Amino acid sequence: MIVAVCPNPAIDVTYTVPELVPGASHRVITTRSRAGGKGVNVARVLSRLGVETRLLGLAGGTTGESIREQLRDAGIPVDLTAVAGESRRTVTVVSPAGATVLNEPGPVVTAAEWTAFTARFAAAVASAEVVVLSGSCPPGVPVTAYRDLTVAAHAAGAVVLVDAAGATLRHALTARPDLVKPNADEIADLVGAPPRTRAEAVSAAHRLGDLGAAAAVVTRGAAGFVAVIGETAYEARAPETVLGNPTGAGDALAAVLARGLATGQPWSSTLAQAAAVSAAAVVSPCAGDFDAPTADRLLTHVTVEEVTDAARRHR
Amino acid sequence: MIVAVCPNPAIDVTYTVPELVPGASHRVITTRSRAGGKGVNVARVLSRLGVETRLLGLAGGTTGESIREQLRDAGIPVDLTAVAGESRRTVTVVSPAGATVLNEPGPVVTAAEWTAFTARFAAAVASAEVVVLSGSCPPGVPVTAYRDLTVAAHAAGAVVLVDAAGATLRHALTARPDLVKPNADEIADLVGAPPRTRAEAVSAAHRLGDLGAAAAVVTRGAAGFVAVIGETAYEARAPETVLGNPTGAGDALAAVLARGLATGQPWSSTLAQAAAVSAAAVVSPCAGDFDAPTADRLLTHVTVEEVTDAARRHR
Repeated sequence: MIVAVCPNPAIDVTYTVPELVPGASHRVITTRSRAGGKGVNVARVLSRLGVETRLLGLAGGTTGESIREQLRDAGIPVDLTAVAGESRRTVTVVSPAGATVLNEPGPVVTAAEWTAFTARFAAAVASAEVVVLSGSCPPGVPVTAYRDLTVAAHAAGAVVLVDAAGATLRHALTARPDLVKPNADEIADLVGAPPRTRAEAVSAAHRLGDLGAAAAVVTRGAAGFVAVIGETAYEARAPETVLGNPTGAGDALAAVLARGLATGQPWSSTLAQAAAVSAAAVVSPCAGDFDAPTADRLLTHVTVEEVTDAARRHR
Repeated sequence: MIVAVCPNPAIDVTYTVPELVPGASHRVITTRSRAGGKGVNVARVLSRLGVETRLLGLAGGTTGESIREQLRDAGIPVDLTAVAGESRRTVTVVSPAGATVLNEPGPVVTAAEWTAFTARFAAAVASAEVVVLSGSCPPGVPVTAYRDLTVAAHAAGAVVLVDAAGATLRHALTARPDLVKPNADEIADLVGAPPRTRAEAVSAAHRLGDLGAAAAVVTRGAAGFVAVIGETAYEARAPETVLGNPTGAGDALAAVLARGLATGQPWSSTLAQAAAVSAAAVVSPCAGDFDAPTADRLLTHVTVEEVTDAARRHR
């Protein structure tokens, strides 16, 4: 069983407007509303892949109730610790200017609520092979949250994948997670600047290893991703650039990586599947989903190549 | 008792961001959420004025539940007909560019739901002296809604105030409402162009009378409002320009006009109170509220003057 953690789930609302003009009043043409958050997307993709999954997190208020209800309807087993605050919404305004995103911070979590969550986490990881810790934490949750959850998961014998950024990731690395999966922008403060080239991404992944990660995947958007497993670096790419909605592609990738950790299959297979499914997630209009025919088609064409890291060899 | 009708109530969400950039991602600094809609604001102000009020409308989904709950907590008697659709939210993004408003259209109301509403409306108006019909109608409600409700209210012996725009107002006028209260922009299509001067506003109010209104108030923002009662025109103004949030000022004005209709007090008193309370509503940060000390202070200084309408005298 895989436990996906989403500390700050949301109702993601998408508005379409003909044009977005700051300071003006707009009639919204279409409205879409869907439970989201990185960990929710991971659980959705794992569920679609047929992997036994349980989603843990914190949720409160009527928005929290909507999140529970939608995930129940989607057939995803959830164990969301109740909080007194109101769960967050995100509003994405789609206009010719692109996607304008407004992220609410989320409910303020009390120490008692966080303690209640960690107790339920400890109970859930007892029967988990893999734990995925995804996304940001709501206000009030300690910055050491992912470090502490990694320690608890390891104590229970589970393998841990961390998909986080900034201070949350930095602290998590000290607990030596089995895999970390940030994107290039999310590690700017850890490696000095966001890696822009493949070589910089490989170097950044090695740095994440030096900081404590047993393995590191650094995603590069349409350019695919690099992975450093121990001392070996790989690059994985889809054979073509797919068009669509990239939101949630990183979460689909995390889901496939988690499944690979759970099955213990060779890394080369896992990385190829991850490249195919995350590209197929771009084709799907909704985050937390992927287009299965596209994934099947791409899987036979993705490339996973070992990358020679000159700088590393001469250390 | 005054019945305030809000066919399309909302949860009004206000976000504050340091800057609004179309196409970018934003962290929301503060979030505020409050049940709103013109009729809801009218009921709130009447309730604050100590007037016995009942709010009628249509509401559905978790947003509808939040609206009910907030109004119950505010002590406002509500009778909201349940609809299968989800009630709307409005999102206002406050930034240095001003207020950027995103209005969802609201739930699609079925014919059966509208019939259920009209039955409850007929029951409520039986014990009402005044009915206030405020704001737009959700999709599915007939454009003749306010005409039909006015006819029903008159049949029950109630006096009717209509605060609407466009086709909804045009149809309502054919049922000869006792008072209409549009703003200058809302009657552009009825009178040819939005009245910009006091003389044009008076002329527009007369035109609303010609179209069927027994009395008409045309609001002009910070410049106050004009009223035409029968053949007599008035201008009412606060003695000073107040700064603040003008959203809901027109609803506060409607509430005071409705109270005046209910008590049968002289128009001059009603218009003076309406000018004071609507200016005091600008001072209050929330729509549906007003600053009572400001209203008391302004009441002794507002001016209500009869306006000579040269064009009208020579008709």
